[in-house]
This record gives sequence, structure tokens and C-alpha cells, in this order.
Amino acid sequence: MAASVFLILFAITVLTCTAAHDFQTSIHLLRPRQGLGRQLVEGVDCLSWRLAVETNNLRNWQLVPESCESYVGNYMLGKQYRRDCKVVADAALEYASRLNLTGDGKDIWVFDIDETTLSNSPYYARTDVQFGALPYNATKFNEWVAEGTAPAIPAVRYLYNKLVSLGFKNVILSGTNARFQDVRAANLHKAGYRSWERLILKGDADKGLSAVAYKSKRRTELVSQGYRIVGNVGDQWSDLLGANAGSRTFKVPDPMYYIA
Amino acid sequence: MAASVFLILFAITVLTCTAAHDFQTSIHLLRPRQGLGRQLVEGVDCLSWRLAVETNNLRNWQLVPESCESYVGNYMLGKQYRRDCKVVADAALEYASRLNLTGDGKDIWVFDIDETTLSNSPYYARTDVQFGALPYNATKFNEWVAEGTAPAIPAVRYLYNKLVSLGFKNVILSGTNARFQDVRAANLHKAGYRSWERLILKGDADKGLSAVAYKSKRRTELVSQGYRIVGNVGDQWSDLLGANAGSRTFKVPDPMYYIA
Repeated sequence: MAASVFLILFAITVLTCTAAHDFQTSIHLLRPRQGLGRQLVEGVDCLSWRLAVETNNLRNWQLVPESCESYVGNYMLGKQYRRDCKVVADAALEYASRLNLTGDGKDIWVFDIDETTLSNSPYYARTDVQFGALPYNATKFNEWVAEGTAPAIPAVRYLYNKLVSLGFKNVILSGTNARFQDVRAANLHKAGYRSWERLILKGDADKGLSAVAYKSKRRTELVSQGYRIVGNVGDQWSDLLGANAGSRTFKVPDPMYYIA
Repeated sequence: MAASVFLILFAITVLTCTAAHDFQTSIHLLRPRQGLGRQLVEGVDCLSWRLAVETNNLRNWQLVPESCESYVGNYMLGKQYRRDCKVVADAALEYASRLNLTGDGKDIWVFDIDETTLSNSPYYARTDVQFGALPYNATKFNEWVAEGTAPAIPAVRYLYNKLVSLGFKNVILSGTNARFQDVRAANLHKAGYRSWERLILKGDADKGLSAVAYKSKRRTELVSQGYRIVGNVGDQWSDLLGANAGSRTFKVPDPMYYIA
């Protein structure tokens, strides 16, 4: 009898415990290489680091801190990243729903590609990439781009298509080299982005320009063609700063790399 | 005998469980009003909401979502806020250490007051304020300002004084009404900010200006007087955007209120 009581108590406790541990594995709780007593190895609080990246307090960083590699990997593949992306899309849609369309087809939203419309998580999850904890390798990354198999970021795809149904036009503006025009268009289409006003990639005339200068130049061209940039969605601050950045900007999270 | 085994098992399980719960109470893990099965009440993920605030994706918001009140309160009073502030200060100092001072005393940093140099957490923690979950009350807030007892944000104070020792001048630029000039100066001094090049508060000539317009105007005056704004530290994006925002901006976290 006593044994049965303990057995029941034990079962309940294990269940409770499992729930707590399950909760612990939820992505934004993960802090890698954490010792006892909540001390963080190397003094890097990965959540604080990520916040500093997202607010543009940290700039020109080269690599994800080694001690945050697991954190970033788990974040990117987990629920918190998806939730963070959803809040971005919800904020953009809330704003879009309050806009009065002029009806001349010139109200546009600008979208970046990598880590905005499309996700490179399958590439970044590779052991030879390690979520940005290893140096960027252009050859390897371009091979991945050439595959044309990047999945959509679901929340951004939802935003993108919802904007189309509201009557906006979307322009896709990416730093990808223009030689990938066909494969990127096919990839976007396959991932669920069915139409765009323009798909602008980096051509020979843009060579040597920084991301901010290139994107500012191309946005200024759009404005000089009569377009009004009412929204601008990107994962890098270099997508969202500079000339004609748009009436509102929306920063999609990306703790994996920094583009100046 | 069987009972003893269960008792031991039970004790071990309870201990493990307690450790997990202890970990859970660490500040950035707190998600209030969370039901079973990880469902969030009202669909608000408070960490995602805070990220959207900090990245300027959410603008002109009036109140902290009710379901995030406890989250924001615990964040502001807990370790994560202090860590987030420290990473801001570290990033600013890393940048400052790489700057070459011209030696003419014209290299300045601009600092905001509320939630930047000084913390209003003692006020916001009051039950009649609830960390921004209740509407802003100017009369009450001004009474608190008039007390002149706001504590420093330690990481920002460290940054502030370190910049002075590196040879920079600091300008304090706040939207506080100029009638509080003496009490704010005394409060800053008492909190450990011992010197400034200027302490600029909002005067009659600034009446009716938005925060961005007011701060842009005052920064532009500084620039026209020969100052170079090398850094700008504030908790609101309205501190950090607009004319002459500075060569680098540093966003201090503030999920309690939004100033347009």
C-alpha cells in the first residue's frame, strides 16, 4: 500500500519534472556551456549578445561567439525564431492594414532574400558551417544558392502573399550576384513566392558597393521611377538603412552573420 | 524495503525538479500566464514582443501588453536587463577605444536621461504604474522626477565615466522639461555622473516638437557649434534617429514605454 502511494507520487513527480525539462529545452532558454550556479562561460550572455546584434549595437562582427554556437543553432531551428519572425510579420501586417493604397500600383514593399524571404538554415546547420561560428566561405555558400532549394520563412511568406492580396506590389532586392537570377527566381517560386514587381540582384554596375550603398542606389532608382516604398523587410540593418529606406522598416532576426 | 526505494527515488526526483524550477525562474525565462502545453495566453510571446520593441519593429505602442506585465517587471528588476545593459556598454566602449580623439575637446557622446543614465524602475515598479501596463500619468511621473532620487543604470554610468577618462565630453540631452534643470542635475550628480559638457532639457522654444524633431534640432545646434557626435546612447529610437544622430548609436533596452 505504502509502495503504491510512493509509486503514484513518483509518477506524478516524474511527469511534472519532465514537463519542466521539456519547458527548459524551449529555444530561448538554452544557454550553452553553462556551468553550475548560472555562471556563463567566457562572460557571454548569448541572449544579450543576440539582442545587441538585432538592435545594431554590435556592428561589423565576423563570427558568432564560439560559446554561443549551440545557442544560435538551437534558436534558428527552434520555436523562438519562428515566434520572433511571426511578430515581425504581424507588426508589418498591422501597419499595412492601416495604409491607404493610392491605387496606381506604385505602393511597394521591398523584401530581401537571404534570411528574409528564404531561409538558409539547412546550409547553416551543416557541420562545416556551424551557424556562423566558422568563417564565411563564398564558394560553398554559392554552391548552396545554386541548388535553389532554400525553404521559405513561413511568417514572411505569409506577410508577402497577404500584402499582394491587399493590393501592394513587392520588390525583391538582394545582394546575390545576378548570375543566379534564374535559380533564385525558381527557388522563390518553389518556396511559395509567386509574383513580384521586380527581382533585383547585384549586377556588374553594382560591383564594389557596400550593401547599404547598393541597396540605397537601387531603392533610389525605384523612387525615381515613381514607386513609393511604404515598407522594407530585411534581416540586416544594411537592408534597412540608407537612402529611401522606406516609410517603415521591419528587422527580421538573424544572429548568424553580419553584412556591412 | 520497496517503500524505501520509492522514497529515495521520490526524493531524488523532487530535487532534480526543484533545480529545474530554479533555472526556470531566471529572468529571461519568465513568461507569465503561460498555460500547459506551452500555449501562451492571448498569443503574445513576451520575449518576441520585447525583441520587436527593441528593433523598432513595433512603433507608437501605448501600453505593455497586459499578459507581459509580469514579464516586463521581472525583466527590468532582474539579471537579464542588467546583462543586456552591460553588453550595450561593452559594445560602446569597444567602439570608443578604437576612436582617435582629435584633442580639441569637440568629440562628444550624447546621452539621454530616463532609462539611459538614470533608471525610473523604482517608479515603474509601483502598483499604480505597473511597469508601463497602466497608462502614463504625467503628474505622477513629474512628482517622481521632482524627488530627484532616480538611481543610475550601473553599466551606463560605467560607460559614461570611462568615456570621460578616455578624453571624450558627454552631453546629456533629455526631453525632461527645463523647469527640472536643478533637480535633474542634482539627481545625476548624486547617481554618479559628475561632469558634463552640456545638460540640455526641453525649453519653451522646443514646445510642440516631437522627440525626434527636438533632439535632432538640439544635436544640429551642437554640430553647428563645432562638436562631432561620435556616439549617441539612448533607450528610445527617437533618441537615435533623425538629423546628426551620431557616428554610432547604442540602444539601451526599454520595454516599459514608447516615446515618438
